[in-house]
Formats: sequence, C-alpha cells, structure tokens
Amino acid sequence: MALIVQKFGGTSVADLDCVRRVAKRIKGDWLSGNKVVVVVSARAGLTDELIRKAKSLNESPSPRELDALISIGEQESMTLLSIALQTEGVPAISRTGAQAGILTDFAFNNANILSVSGSDIQERLNEGKVVIVAGFQGTNALGETTTLGRGGSDLTAIALAHALRADHCKIFTDVEGVFSTDPKIVSNAKKLDEISFDHMFLLASMGSKVMQSRAVSFAKDKKIPFEILSTFSDKPGTFVKEIVEEKTPAPSIALDRDQKLVTVQFTSLNTPTSPPLSRFLDLFQPHTSLDMLESSTDQLSFSIPSHHYAWSKHATDAFLAETTNAILLVKDIAKISLVGIPSSSIPIHQISNTLKQSNINLYACVPSPSKISLAVDIANAESTVSLLHQTLIHSNDPIPFPLNLTGTYN
Amino acid sequence: MALIVQKFGGTSVADLDCVRRVAKRIKGDWLSGNKVVVVVSARAGLTDELIRKAKSLNESPSPRELDALISIGEQESMTLLSIALQTEGVPAISRTGAQAGILTDFAFNNANILSVSGSDIQERLNEGKVVIVAGFQGTNALGETTTLGRGGSDLTAIALAHALRADHCKIFTDVEGVFSTDPKIVSNAKKLDEISFDHMFLLASMGSKVMQSRAVSFAKDKKIPFEILSTFSDKPGTFVKEIVEEKTPAPSIALDRDQKLVTVQFTSLNTPTSPPLSRFLDLFQPHTSLDMLESSTDQLSFSIPSHHYAWSKHATDAFLAETTNAILLVKDIAKISLVGIPSSSIPIHQISNTLKQSNINLYACVPSPSKISLAVDIANAESTVSLLHQTLIHSNDPIPFPLNLTGTYN
Repeated sequence: MALIVQKFGGTSVADLDCVRRVAKRIKGDWLSGNKVVVVVSARAGLTDELIRKAKSLNESPSPRELDALISIGEQESMTLLSIALQTEGVPAISRTGAQAGILTDFAFNNANILSVSGSDIQERLNEGKVVIVAGFQGTNALGETTTLGRGGSDLTAIALAHALRADHCKIFTDVEGVFSTDPKIVSNAKKLDEISFDHMFLLASMGSKVMQSRAVSFAKDKKIPFEILSTFSDKPGTFVKEIVEEKTPAPSIALDRDQKLVTVQFTSLNTPTSPPLSRFLDLFQPHTSLDMLESSTDQLSFSIPSHHYAWSKHATDAFLAETTNAILLVKDIAKISLVGIPSSSIPIHQISNTLKQSNINLYACVPSPSKISLAVDIANAESTVSLLHQTLIHSNDPIPFPLNLTGTYN
Repeated sequence: MALIVQKFGGTSVADLDCVRRVAKRIKGDWLSGNKVVVVVSARAGLTDELIRKAKSLNESPSPRELDALISIGEQESMTLLSIALQTEGVPAISRTGAQAGILTDFAFNNANILSVSGSDIQERLNEGKVVIVAGFQGTNALGETTTLGRGGSDLTAIALAHALRADHCKIFTDVEGVFSTDPKIVSNAKKLDEISFDHMFLLASMGSKVMQSRAVSFAKDKKIPFEILSTFSDKPGTFVKEIVEEKTPAPSIALDRDQKLVTVQFTSLNTPTSPPLSRFLDLFQPHTSLDMLESSTDQLSFSIPSHHYAWSKHATDAFLAETTNAILLVKDIAKISLVGIPSSSIPIHQISNTLKQSNINLYACVPSPSKISLAVDIANAESTVSLLHQTLIHSNDPIPFPLNLTGTYN
C-alpha cells in the first residue's frame, strides 16, 4: 500500500466532465489499496478572470486582498472533485491550504512555504479517506490566505509529498510528460523518459509551462523525485529525479512568449560601462531575475518577464534620471531557450543563418554554460521553435557547424 | 462617532459597477467619521450557479463540501469590495466568516451561530480601517466552513451588530424597505416606516425575500433594531424594532412561489384521522416546518417548501407504506400570506369570491391567529397578490364582509 500525492492542473478540471474523469482516475488508485492525496488547481481560466476583475477595480490591487480573491478558484475545484469522488463511492474530504496546515511567510502573491503539518491529512488517510487539497495557497501566521505564485499547485504537491513521506508524487497535466519542446507547437517533439532536477529547473525557469520552477527547486532541494504525466492518457510520463552523472542530457527547447528585451545605449562612447551596469543591476536585482545579460562598450541589454518590467519601472526611471547620456529601448519579445544541448556543439552561426533565411529577426542570442537563449518577435515564436527543433533535435545528423561561444551574431 | 454595521445583498454587488457604487456609499459613512463594518453577500446568481454545479455531480452533495463550495461567492465579494474601497482611498480589509470569529455548530447548510468574537474587528476599526466581512458563513469547532442558510448574510450582520454593540445596523437591499407587498409585483405598494420584529418575522417566514427570517428572530431575541433600505436610493427605509403595543399593525402580503401543497385523502371513511395525522407529523416534523395545516375526517393537507418536500420524500413513502387506505396528492403552488390585517376583519368569503370572478383557483385558504395563507397556481401568483392588495390594502374603504374564521371556503 503506497501513499501517492497527485496534482491535477487547471485543464484537468476545466469543466464538470473533466472533474468526473479525474474522479474516476483517482478512484482507480484508491481501489488498488493506495492512500491518495490529491492537489487540485483552479479550473483553467478562472484565476486569470479573477485577476482581471481585481485589476479593473484597481491597477495595483492590494496583494493581501488579491490572494484572498484568487485562492477561491482552488476551493471551487477541491469541493467539486470531493463531491464527484463521493458520487463514485469514494470517501473524499477537502482541505484548503490553511486547513491542510500549509504555513507560509507574508510574501503575498508569491509566498514561500515555511512548514507543512501532515498530521491532519495522515489522520484522514488512516480513516480510509481520499484527501483533496486546494493547491496554490497557504496561510501566514496571522491566518491570512497567501498564494504561492503562478503554477503554485505544483509546489503544494511537492511540499505535501515531502511532509507525508509519500512513495510517489505525480503531476498530472495536459501533455504526456516533458518533451524536447512543447508538443502543442511541434507535433513530433520527443517525450523524455527521465530528466534531472537541474535540467527540469532550467526548462521551467526558461518558460516551459509544464511545471513551476520553484516546485522543481524545492523537489531538488528535498530530493523528492516525481513524475509528470497526462490526465488524458494512461501512458507513462517523464520522471524528474536526481541524475548524478548526466552524460547526454536530453536536448529540449523552452519558449517564453511574455518577455521584454531591455537595451540601454550609451550615446557618449567615452562613458565607462562598468559603473552604469552595476548601478542598473543594483536597481533591478531586488525585483526580478535578469536573463540574457550582455554588455559591450556602448550598450547593455537583458531580458525580463513583462510583468516584472512593470514592477521595475521606477528602477528604469531612477537610472535614466542619473544617466544623462543613455537611451532606453524596450521591446516585447519571445525568449527561446535551448537547454541540454551540449554547449560545445551549438552552432550559433547556423542558428543565425537559418533564421535569417526564414526572414526571422534575431534580436539577441546569448549563450551561457547551461543554455542558449534567443530573442525573436512574438509573432515568430512558434515558427522559430519549429525550425530549431527540426534543425537541432529532430534531425539525427551530427550538428555540422563549429562552435562559436562568443555570442557574436548578426 | 458611531459604529455602523451594514449589509449589502447580492444585487447590490451584482457586477463591478455595482461594487464601485457600494464602495462610494461606504466611503461617505467613513468620511463622516463613523466606524464601519460591512457584511457582503455573493453577487446575484453565483450561489445558485455553484449549487447547480454541485448537484450536477451529485443530486445530494455532501453538506460539508457544499458549504465549502458555496462560501466562496462571499469571499469573492469581500475582496473585490475591499479593493474598490482602497481605490477610493479608504483603508479596507476583508475577513472571511472564520477570520471574523463567527463560530457555529455543525449543522452544515443551515448552521446556527454559537458565538461571535468581535475583538479582531474592533482592533481593525481602531486602526481606522473599514472591515469587510464575508456574509452567510462561519466556522465550526473543527475549522470547517459552515453556511447560515439562504439569506444568511442578514444573520451575519445582525450577529455582528450584537457582538460589536453597534449603534446602527443597516440592511441594504434592492427595494426601499418593507412594503405592503413586493413593489416589483404591485407598483403602488406602500412603504412601511416601521414594523415590529414579530410582524417582520412573519413576513420573512411567509416568503418575503427582503430579509432572512432567522436573522429577524435573532434580532428580536437580542433586541437589535435595524433598518432595511435601498442601495440604489438615499431615501430612509423601514425600521424594524421592538414595538410593544402594536395597535394597528401595517397590513402586508407575502408571496412564496416555491411551495408544495400536500394532501392525504383517506379512501375509507371509517379510518380515524387522529392516528395517521400524528404519525404523519412525526415523520415530517424533524425535517421541516409545516404550514397551512388542515384536517377533516377524510383528509389532511399542509404546505411545505418544495426543497423540503424532496428531503422528506422518505417520510411520505414510509407513511404510505403503513397506511393502505390513503391517496397522496402533491401540487406545486404559490403561497400568499396576509399578515398584519386584523384577523377579525378578514372577509374570507370575499377573498374566495374575488378570486373566483378572476378565474383564479383557490386550493386552500387557512386562517391562523396571526395570518391567513392562500394556495394558488404559481402562474396566478402575481395577479392574486395584485388583486388582494387592491382589495384589502390599497382601497381605503372599510372591509365590507363579516369575518369567517372557520376556514370554510369554496
């Protein structure tokens, strides 16, 4: 008899038919004699709808009130799923994050889990019940509802698997696992059987929607292996685990459609670049994680998530006020990251030429030891991913061009 | 500086424009230097939508899960209203029923309030904040969410007014107060300036939607006067209070469209009526409150709320299994109750004749010391209310017919 923690995402409980399907799936695991804890997200679209409502009342709604608002989506899912399970003859009981003993800090909208008390859930499991926990939420020491950042239900599942010493942790989603790129974009993308925590973390950080990056980081930290698999099929998924010697990491391409490329051009060539750069980083760093950072004598540039740019607007304004000889350029881009392709074999000139032949503008292409990230127009995002997947992953030919890691590109 | 508890119903927060309007109204009271606690309902229609979802998964959903589900509507309203108030520059903070310290028993779906801890709200008020409390909900001793029955936000408001020793308690709704009948049906219905707890309780129990009957009962018990008034106008409303000597109670007509008239006919005339009647009452009484009870040698009949009939179906089945010589007739009806019209002046024959002239079938007409209730087809509900209002209330003529309290009618 195993203890299984499973998480079902928003598309898995998108409507009542989906909820019934998930209930039948859970029933199977329960009938096999397992103890089952289920973490559930809000139905697809609901959280965005609630955020839209809040923002239509106030562009910057109180983070505290916003959390109390957007946590209700998971509460809807947990109760509907409990009721559907009871209809199937499975004794189920629901728990909000607070009721499940998930204690967080006070960082509303992006709270960190401080501790998880598993005792109540263990008692319910010992009574033979299936426990349905509202994902994405916890409570701070004042009893206020907090949320764990977008995709936070993943973190709830991993944290519960840790607290309950679960035998298995399964993250159910709408794709069959981790692919060489999003199978919704590239139909012949290859499913990976397994992937290391590090590689998965990189993919998630670079915009792969399959898993929240904080949840992967937590799993790596606590050594909680888990499986990513599909609600809509019975095929095995992708195991994410500690892989000590990853000789040939599976190559994959992540896409983040919602980034901004920020470029500061210095109009006077005599300006020393170091002081402005470090000053700029000091201004931005507390608010966000910069990526694709590049600097030369006359400019520096980096990419950040679009919503972080809005938060950091005052940093930009402060910098420009201090720096009279700088021009700021900000552009909406899609960021495409090549992960797990041995850096020694990445043909940057070929990438650049291939995109040029397809009339795709490449605004930046920045290699780092673990990945290469490219900035293109959002309209070109999917065709770029397809092209790179075809060239670098799907073709079994050896990659023909010599490496150029200096980041020079047209 | 007064402490005001005000409650806004579902139509008052039906959409974001309504929420903004309510926020501006609250701001006015707060700017005048008052301490303001606001109880808010789910937006109109949401609770019904959630119940429909639960019932489509299970005809009899778990009362515990149903409460956890239907409580989210008020949580949506409380946060949106807080955000709208903050946009107006008013420091507002939201509280769920549990966070507001509303402790109830374990009677899910229809819980009773055991105690209300006002200390947290008092602290927030002393900080200068407006406190927005989710109505209709509390928590039991196990930390599970409970709800207080339909219209339960009224009870939340009255209970908070009691716990906080409020100076004023205002129930905002979509009509301007208590009328001689529903002004949406009879446009020239008269608004009552004041009404006694007892009279208000009768109206609410008989189907007047303006106020939850349990809330009125609680207010009478704790001697908490309150005012019912409109969100959409600035006119004074109706004061509900202790009126010791109510010499001329204001006449009014309540309508409940969702009732069943249950009739048991005994086919053998020799059957003693008393044993079956008491047996029948024993079966039904734990589940519901019967009204319009009448018995004769060959039949007994009563009215109950339609949803209570579904709950009591097993009682009916048990009774018919025991009683071989009985036929059961169940009919959907609208129940119309005449309240506050001195019983000594009610012309039952005239009522009967008036309805007959308008081709309205009268299925039952049962007088009691405090009211007279009539059963008609649901399709005839509004025309009957109009007709009776015109005849008995709007006409200033003395009521012409002699009293007949025996309940005999055609």
